[in-house]
Amino acid sequence: MNRISFEVVHAQLANVLRRRGFSDARAELCARLFAETTCDGVYSHGVNRFPRFVAMVHNGSVDPAAEPRVVARIGALERWDGQRGAGNLNAYAAMARALALAADHGIACVAMGNTNHWMRGGTYGWQAADAGMIGLCWTNTMPNLPPWGGAEPCIGNNPLVIAVPRAKGNVVLDMAMSQFSYGAMESYRKRGVMLPVDGGFDAQGNLTRDPAAIEGTQRLLPAGYWKGSGLAMVLDMMAAMLSLGNATHHIVPDPLRETGLSQVFVAMNPLALGDEPHIERIADEVVESVHRSRPAEEGSPVRYPGEQTLRTRAENRRLGLLLEPAVWDEILAM
Amino acid sequence: MNRISFEVVHAQLANVLRRRGFSDARAELCARLFAETTCDGVYSHGVNRFPRFVAMVHNGSVDPAAEPRVVARIGALERWDGQRGAGNLNAYAAMARALALAADHGIACVAMGNTNHWMRGGTYGWQAADAGMIGLCWTNTMPNLPPWGGAEPCIGNNPLVIAVPRAKGNVVLDMAMSQFSYGAMESYRKRGVMLPVDGGFDAQGNLTRDPAAIEGTQRLLPAGYWKGSGLAMVLDMMAAMLSLGNATHHIVPDPLRETGLSQVFVAMNPLALGDEPHIERIADEVVESVHRSRPAEEGSPVRYPGEQTLRTRAENRRLGLLLEPAVWDEILAM
Repeated sequence: MNRISFEVVHAQLANVLRRRGFSDARAELCARLFAETTCDGVYSHGVNRFPRFVAMVHNGSVDPAAEPRVVARIGALERWDGQRGAGNLNAYAAMARALALAADHGIACVAMGNTNHWMRGGTYGWQAADAGMIGLCWTNTMPNLPPWGGAEPCIGNNPLVIAVPRAKGNVVLDMAMSQFSYGAMESYRKRGVMLPVDGGFDAQGNLTRDPAAIEGTQRLLPAGYWKGSGLAMVLDMMAAMLSLGNATHHIVPDPLRETGLSQVFVAMNPLALGDEPHIERIADEVVESVHRSRPAEEGSPVRYPGEQTLRTRAENRRLGLLLEPAVWDEILAM
Repeated sequence: MNRISFEVVHAQLANVLRRRGFSDARAELCARLFAETTCDGVYSHGVNRFPRFVAMVHNGSVDPAAEPRVVARIGALERWDGQRGAGNLNAYAAMARALALAADHGIACVAMGNTNHWMRGGTYGWQAADAGMIGLCWTNTMPNLPPWGGAEPCIGNNPLVIAVPRAKGNVVLDMAMSQFSYGAMESYRKRGVMLPVDGGFDAQGNLTRDPAAIEGTQRLLPAGYWKGSGLAMVLDMMAAMLSLGNATHHIVPDPLRETGLSQVFVAMNPLALGDEPHIERIADEVVESVHRSRPAEEGSPVRYPGEQTLRTRAENRRLGLLLEPAVWDEILAM
């Protein structure tokens, strides 16, 4: 792995985007979101994903010039059309709008249809929590997960993000509805190790920890079996109903043509209700109660969601972003 | 098991409540919510739970006369104090208020602290969806679940409910953050069968399907391992921050004294954004796409959350509610 400074990576990605029709400001932000994702240690959805993103600009799935526009609104709820623009720019704009609305309304929702993959969902959780608000957002995806009781992928793994502001480091949950992503399974397979828990079914229909067997059947396991399966279905329904966009069964099951997604961004503003000092201690106290509890393995304290992020971010900022040489060479040649 | 008509059960529960200080209208509604829960087949949180509820009126955890009151509001977000009233009546009032606010604001949130166990969470999902809106609500609980990586129960199983309106039958997800409830494990143990999937740890620290072994260690498994564990933490933080009520670590870990809970009720009103005919088809089409997909076992189509409810409800309305004789005798003697 190479270590390349954040600034060099950011500038190179922005250059590539400018040459493909992104305005200066949009190229800058889009590139920053990719670089920040790798910086935060979410390698599967950061710079490693950039070549696929550029390929989707080339094949017309992502329109570099398209900006989202509002199509309907009532009070604190707005429906937006993403116009097939860059998924991370659209999502960032949608959460920014939800945060602005929640400043006045206490809670607000922006539902966006006709958009693209938002890359790392946690980005928009950090965005909300950095603004001092609770962020809750989700997206649907192409069909890539068999429901519980089903043999073929007909629901999406529909990531759900919930972020809670905390002075000592935001708490950011970013979870897909499959127990493992294909990216995670590939990583385990390449390292030659089994998954820590069952991740899907083998060719005989048995639960297995063998990543290669699951990649073969494509029968990934929903997180919590029927629970993640049901959650994926209702997240999809809500996203399509609020945005008037596609549900998963309408989305082309091809990673290079997966477009027209539906997403929901909710911001909640508890500080607007008063008693700030008390509210600001709450997340801290919950974290402390969990840290104080007896761990299953001595010396390995229980973690809260996102606990590693700030440390990883600081380390990668200091030492440079971890990049696969082949991916970085490919981006330099763009 | 006995079969007793809905009306007889409802009247008897209401009588018991009136004699314990509930006003006529509140006794009627509280009793109806208990009877409906059993009627819908959620036996663990319906009439079987009524004796414990009455015991909590007797021991002062539930104040039969207390009604919730608003303590802060901004726009579409309100904070309420449940004043330790009956949990199901408080939750019903909170969702009703969220629905009324969402009629004007498109989305609304009522956060309620200082309340009691809401019994079946799905009740408030059905309430929202029957009103044509999306309902999303959750509650914290006493510490009853070890987090992923933890050996002692320090987080709550914090049920989450999401309901989507659908003309042919609402879609209602009602999931706790543990893979199984204690009630479910007891039921498997009494029938002498193993859980269908791992449900927790045995005394040796291994994952097991043996309900008795898990009841022994009290090391239940969060749904989706680290995913359900993280989700339980952020649901707790959000509930406490929005309501200014207790987080799980403040709640007495005693089923008969579990009070002062924090709950959040969100209503979303997609129909207010227009294009009703299209919106009303969306949930149907998702259900159809799932029903059309190839099942893992031939002849067992994939189900959506809540799919069994209407059939069970109709059957129990026709034949009478299924009650354990000992529980019904106890209630008749109250």
